Amino acid sequence: MGLHTRIDSAVERAIALGQGGAAPARLASALHYACTPGGARIRPTILVSVAMACGDDRPGLADAAAAALELIHCASLVHDDLPCFDDAEIRRGKPAVHRAYSQPLAVLAGDSLIILAFDVLARAAHAAPERAIELIRLLARQTGMPHGICAGQGWESEDKIDLGAYHRSKTGALFIAATQMGAVAAGQEAEPWYELGARIGEAFQVADDLRDALCSQEELGKPAGQDDLHGRPNAVSLLGVDGAVKRLKDILGGAIASIPSCPGEAQLAQMVTAYADRLTPAAVKARV
Amino acid sequence: MGLHTRIDSAVERAIALGQGGAAPARLASALHYACTPGGARIRPTILVSVAMACGDDRPGLADAAAAALELIHCASLVHDDLPCFDDAEIRRGKPAVHRAYSQPLAVLAGDSLIILAFDVLARAAHAAPERAIELIRLLARQTGMPHGICAGQGWESEDKIDLGAYHRSKTGALFIAATQMGAVAAGQEAEPWYELGARIGEAFQVADDLRDALCSQEELGKPAGQDDLHGRPNAVSLLGVDGAVKRLKDILGGAIASIPSCPGEAQLAQMVTAYADRLTPAAVKARV
Repeated sequence: MGLHTRIDSAVERAIALGQGGAAPARLASALHYACTPGGARIRPTILVSVAMACGDDRPGLADAAAAALELIHCASLVHDDLPCFDDAEIRRGKPAVHRAYSQPLAVLAGDSLIILAFDVLARAAHAAPERAIELIRLLARQTGMPHGICAGQGWESEDKIDLGAYHRSKTGALFIAATQMGAVAAGQEAEPWYELGARIGEAFQVADDLRDALCSQEELGKPAGQDDLHGRPNAVSLLGVDGAVKRLKDILGGAIASIPSCPGEAQLAQMVTAYADRLTPAAVKARV
Repeated sequence: MGLHTRIDSAVERAIALGQGGAAPARLASALHYACTPGGARIRPTILVSVAMACGDDRPGLADAAAAALELIHCASLVHDDLPCFDDAEIRRGKPAVHRAYSQPLAVLAGDSLIILAFDVLARAAHAAPERAIELIRLLARQTGMPHGICAGQGWESEDKIDLGAYHRSKTGALFIAATQMGAVAAGQEAEPWYELGARIGEAFQVADDLRDALCSQEELGKPAGQDDLHGRPNAVSLLGVDGAVKRLKDILGGAIASIPSCPGEAQLAQMVTAYADRLTPAAVKARV
């Protein structure tokens, strides 16, 4: 089974847990809608790649961690798309959840996916309760307040933004969760894997800024030019396109250098490189 | 330390965990605002009362469970008050979170409180990891989909409502969580405590229907007559005031009869009776 199939199947199993029994049908349907089509599933792919690089001795726990992380990511997209935030019409090439269903169901779908993420980890705990508890703590830390993606969004309501904290929370947090949870699912310490996650997160932010500035809505599957529109800080406006591309390369070099010593170290470096290539917009590749 | 002080202090400690470090200040403030003033803290009071009736051999875990449950309850109030749901101006006698802060901060405060609830349980796990895992599973079950309070709200978006599932999820779920989590925090089985929670939940629903129909906004600390206004099913419209009062008494009798055998059984029965008295609106007491 390929990595992509493994992850998609873990996510599908997780969603099915939230749909069982006599559930209200529209909300049950919204849970699935919010998480599909899967797209790249970048965060869980990094998570499982790290787990595999560390030996992956509890694959069921790594699967649960990957699914939990993706559910949290999808929940954050559903809530970020709400009219009171980005008011996005389109996500992944189809109507955003609040457009396809309703605002109440979008709020509830996000809430339900967050709760399901923690439930999935607790259900997988029997094999290794201590690891599961640490996975829950890592996921909570990178998702909620004071340091997770909720905090990242929260910074947008402040008059004075702490830009470092803002980016680390808003984009970096779930990548840090990805590398640390992958390591912990496979029985390793979380701390040495922080830097890899943080650097991949920075790279993703710069690549996202480049795509937002250079790509069309069709290429993105969501509205383009949003950073300019909302006056959000952006690497392209700060450094220019060429400066942002150089910064992206530097960060990825640092990411690879930061990989802790482990059995699958070389393969993991390859994954980061392949992932960097995938991140880079065609318009940038044509330019350099 | 009295029960009320014990619970308020556990809730305050939990909120402080979400506010630490370099958090965005307004969201950090919204977390506290959403959970105070505490009011009766009925659900965590039931939880700790059950834990004490079962011996309370891990008070730190019972405290964490009580705080987690109250955070989830407060999160649900914040999201339910949003314009796309009840559009409530007032909660607990002061402006609802989205009025006092903003809609984005209300969405994020709710999300952050949900996440914090699971984090608080995971942080308390060291003393008894298996119990903590079960507490997380019980809380997730009664909060999310397919059976928890999210499902309860989700039923309001269906054309055909399963009324039993609706009430069990919308009001009953967190009372079931209260009795079951109290028992599990003290090392007992969850299952025998289901019925007590379910019956207290039913009683609460009927009492709430009576208050909604008979009390003023000032007495409630929130708008009155909401069920009529939104055409929601209500015990008073189904049974009349006297019928609803009789039903309330029957349910509470059943609740007391259902208490599992445990060292603090008699005290717990007293607590349910006192709680029933507190639940009954003055307008009803004057009437019977």
